[in-house]
Amino acid sequence: MNYQQILESIRRDIEPLKCEGKQADYIPALAAVDPDQWGICIDTLDGHQYKLGDANVPFSLQSISKVFALTMALSLAGDDLWQRMGKEPSGTAFNSLIQLELEHGKPRNPFINAGAIVMADLLVERLSNPEQAFINLARDLSGQPSIDYNFEVARSEHGVAYLNTAIANLLKYHGNIVGDIDRVLRFYFMMCSIEMSCEQLAHAFLAFANHREPFDHAGFRLTASQVKRMNAIMQTCGFYDEAGEFSYLVGLPGKSGVGGGIAAVFPGQYSVAVWSPRLNAKGNSVMGLKSLELLTTQSRQSIF
Amino acid sequence: MNYQQILESIRRDIEPLKCEGKQADYIPALAAVDPDQWGICIDTLDGHQYKLGDANVPFSLQSISKVFALTMALSLAGDDLWQRMGKEPSGTAFNSLIQLELEHGKPRNPFINAGAIVMADLLVERLSNPEQAFINLARDLSGQPSIDYNFEVARSEHGVAYLNTAIANLLKYHGNIVGDIDRVLRFYFMMCSIEMSCEQLAHAFLAFANHREPFDHAGFRLTASQVKRMNAIMQTCGFYDEAGEFSYLVGLPGKSGVGGGIAAVFPGQYSVAVWSPRLNAKGNSVMGLKSLELLTTQSRQSIF
Amino acid sequence: MNYQQILESIRRDIEPLKCEGKQADYIPALAAVDPDQWGICIDTLDGHQYKLGDANVPFSLQSISKVFALTMALSLAGDDLWQRMGKEPSGTAFNSLIQLELEHGKPRNPFINAGAIVMADLLVERLSNPEQAFINLARDLSGQPSIDYNFEVARSEHGVAYLNTAIANLLKYHGNIVGDIDRVLRFYFMMCSIEMSCEQLAHAFLAFANHREPFDHAGFRLTASQVKRMNAIMQTCGFYDEAGEFSYLVGLPGKSGVGGGIAAVFPGQYSVAVWSPRLNAKGNSVMGLKSLELLTTQSRQSIF
Amino acid sequence: MNYQQILESIRRDIEPLKCEGKQADYIPALAAVDPDQWGICIDTLDGHQYKLGDANVPFSLQSISKVFALTMALSLAGDDLWQRMGKEPSGTAFNSLIQLELEHGKPRNPFINAGAIVMADLLVERLSNPEQAFINLARDLSGQPSIDYNFEVARSEHGVAYLNTAIANLLKYHGNIVGDIDRVLRFYFMMCSIEMSCEQLAHAFLAFANHREPFDHAGFRLTASQVKRMNAIMQTCGFYDEAGEFSYLVGLPGKSGVGGGIAAVFPGQYSVAVWSPRLNAKGNSVMGLKSLELLTTQSRQSIF
Repeated sequence: MNYQQILESIRRDIEPLKCEGKQADYIPALAAVDPDQWGICIDTLDGHQYKLGDANVPFSLQSISKVFALTMALSLAGDDLWQRMGKEPSGTAFNSLIQLELEHGKPRNPFINAGAIVMADLLVERLSNPEQAFINLARDLSGQPSIDYNFEVARSEHGVAYLNTAIANLLKYHGNIVGDIDRVLRFYFMMCSIEMSCEQLAHAFLAFANHREPFDHAGFRLTASQVKRMNAIMQTCGFYDEAGEFSYLVGLPGKSGVGGGIAAVFPGQYSVAVWSPRLNAKGNSVMGLKSLELLTTQSRQSIF
Repeated sequence: MNYQQILESIRRDIEPLKCEGKQADYIPALAAVDPDQWGICIDTLDGHQYKLGDANVPFSLQSISKVFALTMALSLAGDDLWQRMGKEPSGTAFNSLIQLELEHGKPRNPFINAGAIVMADLLVERLSNPEQAFINLARDLSGQPSIDYNFEVARSEHGVAYLNTAIANLLKYHGNIVGDIDRVLRFYFMMCSIEMSCEQLAHAFLAFANHREPFDHAGFRLTASQVKRMNAIMQTCGFYDEAGEFSYLVGLPGKSGVGGGIAAVFPGQYSVAVWSPRLNAKGNSVMGLKSLELLTTQSRQSIF
Repeated sequence: MNYQQILESIRRDIEPLKCEGKQADYIPALAAVDPDQWGICIDTLDGHQYKLGDANVPFSLQSISKVFALTMALSLAGDDLWQRMGKEPSGTAFNSLIQLELEHGKPRNPFINAGAIVMADLLVERLSNPEQAFINLARDLSGQPSIDYNFEVARSEHGVAYLNTAIANLLKYHGNIVGDIDRVLRFYFMMCSIEMSCEQLAHAFLAFANHREPFDHAGFRLTASQVKRMNAIMQTCGFYDEAGEFSYLVGLPGKSGVGGGIAAVFPGQYSVAVWSPRLNAKGNSVMGLKSLELLTTQSRQSIF
Repeated sequence: MNYQQILESIRRDIEPLKCEGKQADYIPALAAVDPDQWGICIDTLDGHQYKLGDANVPFSLQSISKVFALTMALSLAGDDLWQRMGKEPSGTAFNSLIQLELEHGKPRNPFINAGAIVMADLLVERLSNPEQAFINLARDLSGQPSIDYNFEVARSEHGVAYLNTAIANLLKYHGNIVGDIDRVLRFYFMMCSIEMSCEQLAHAFLAFANHREPFDHAGFRLTASQVKRMNAIMQTCGFYDEAGEFSYLVGLPGKSGVGGGIAAVFPGQYSVAVWSPRLNAKGNSVMGLKSLELLTTQSRQSIF
């Protein structure tokens, strides 16, 4: 498959969308990003790389980092993790408290904020230095020891984190947070602040595209079956209340973040990372979504 | 792949579950079915068939028939269909009115009852004889001209259809039903009453597993891309509030019905139908779900 | 107290509001009413009457008739009535299905549509000719044998009653409707279609202002304590999601209808009926509400 | 009216209920209270006092203190207060987050926790020493300079206040908390920790029963009309999701607290305080509710 040619074609086709949407601006560090950027990178399991645009510019992973958190949590707790959260699509915005109250503090899935905060609690509880363990995993997966947190972003987010603090307190009220709320949230925001470029992110997700071999990185291990199940969760829960739309238009498991990034995998074939800061009303990158739709349409390859 | 051997192994492994769950009994015709039945059939795109158990016993398709309705609706209306309903997982039970009221009469997806009733309205409006067109499609897909409605089931269901009548009236209130409510519901219950055996159903779903060629049956046409998108909707919305669980454990697009049947596809490879009347609390067949989980686990084949 | 002088003063003070709000127009008969009308009438327990404006023009009682239905239901069923509905304010619009589904078909109170439909079912079940019994009560309370239903209004409403039909079906699904849905709704809409003038309505409500003697009209009997409790329910539930506002601004038990009427009582002193067709966003008469606020403010008399 | 005789009769009649319900035990100080206590005190506007049982034992006012907070907030902000909260019954439990999220951080009324936290924020913002001002008002109203906070109770509650912290953060997220969350909650829990006996509490509420004269205590002033409107809010919102029941059975404006106290007023006549620690499922005192129901039934006096 001539992916490079497809990427060139995508670049032309998304041009009309370049002013649509609005980047996240709830903290200064995200508001300061030049919104007129777009990059994409594909890594295939047989060792090729295809990239275009601003594929080497690091950006804030935000919710994409929840995939790494789930990797660690599943590796440490196995299916016991599902005692503390579900794996069903939420059908609501990522930060809603309503469902969490109705379901007595059991988050619908690991990728809404409530679920990721419970995972952060589990990691803080189980690991002596969760921040170090998390960054080690990210570095190992991406093959880039230089990857790091953006402490300024983590600090800023924590400072205005009223909604996530509300969620964490509601979880604690229902007994689904073991540790200290502030400690858990500090780690949660550190995870979200990690930065990668499309090139690094595509490389990091190659491990999830490889569904035939066990996963073994930075001390975290998953069976091949567990890797496939992580893909299943990305598929049904990776895009908040736009999961169905992404599944319909793109047809790949993936995860988005408000930094404008999206990572996805075509199991057995490739991983892809795309980035563009302008978001639609649901909080997903406008040009990122369109790029992936065009990729699976033009390559005629999707999981369906 | 030696599917026949896998089916034999599945039969042994599900044995302990044979008394779990409870068949649908809200109408006499469903309550009268012998619950201790189990059948399965796989049809591969390269022309093989593998079956076991009560694979030739006809059962009531119920919600599985919504897949055929979506085929017809997409063929007739194309993406205009999405003006009248969404394609997001509902996160709630199949017959909930709450979400429908909050979202002003626009059903979350085609596979909850509200969505299927809107599709029924569209088909009643567009087709001179929707009942005939629907049965023609079912017969053509299954290759069995003998397939038919069970009029007694349709009549019984219509007689106790308070919740679906409530849904239809709420849809009409919001302007999302064009036709006469009774007429639309009559067709809706006729669709649900259709009966097939696992063998017939697997054959009928082979058309959705075939994602490389356009779909053209009984006058209804879909592009290959549309077929893939139907699979995407089955994947995210096919199992009500257990869609995530099915995706996690099985990893195939599919659709279940309260008659105890489940049909699923492994795109590019095979279709499968399984049937066993005892249902779990979410309304999905206990042994059916387990059979498909074992199938993808033992074959190590899923979309992820 | 010089009520006549207060009424004159009210007429001057509400003048600026005369173009605010919008009359109900979901059926032709209501849409055809001249919206620029306003009438008010006070009946005191010591036998005086004070009136002003269009106090003799009959209008459609609509939801105000639910007070008469509650009178009959309490008289027939006593506190058993509360097995089938609550007596708590709903906090939602009068026609919401959400709460009803969450609370498994038990309406929050008798004055939301769901509660009134359950009362209609009870009356249809217990009375051989509920329409006759209802109109007898209305005639006896108002002292006007000429009072009657508006059949055209009842028929029109029934014809577009998608939401109320949805409610009735949801009630039936939960086993909270015994009779035939169409029969129950026919009676429900007949009740709502009854017409009175302010003068007649004030007279009819005098029986509820009289909290010292048992109620005994047209064969329906309530103890003095039951009359007081009916006032309590009017106080907390009589104005849908504006009950608190009415309590705060007016401070009298009362009931409004989309025909633009409001009836209220000052227990031990007087009853009052006011009418003006233009409604606010909550479905209550703009000038009616203001008139009553001015009445209790200027007379310095309220239950608080 | 021979209230003393009625109180004696009440004491006999509630005897069978003495083991029903369960006292609040979420903090040690409340769990340690002897649950088998009951006291009642009536203060009439013409200067008589009637009491019985443990009427001199101080107890934790908890939510009853919200009435004093509303007094201060209305005095300071007037009707501007309603920009920040509603005055409608909530129809839900006192600590629900669902409604608050749906209504974008505007609490339904001043007496649910969210509303009281917003009032606490307003008082912290407007007063240089809100704790002092609050206790001054309580001392002035009760005529007892010895009345005080229970610091241990305030500290304990703050320590386990996950749900209220969630509420406060959600309010802050929606911009409806101006000050520092911890500061606001510290004051909120101080208010709740205040202790009074029935005798002191009845005396304090006499000011609300007096609806003919302006309110002027400890520097806080309300018009007679505002006092009546406070009673209206107690009537519709004073008992969480049991407001309708209280209105129906008792028929007086009042306010309950999880300490087991209830204060109520019969405007123009008397105030009453009753206390008994065992609570029903809604968080209201079992014997307290029954005592007040018997009081208005036997005296045949209520606002209706």
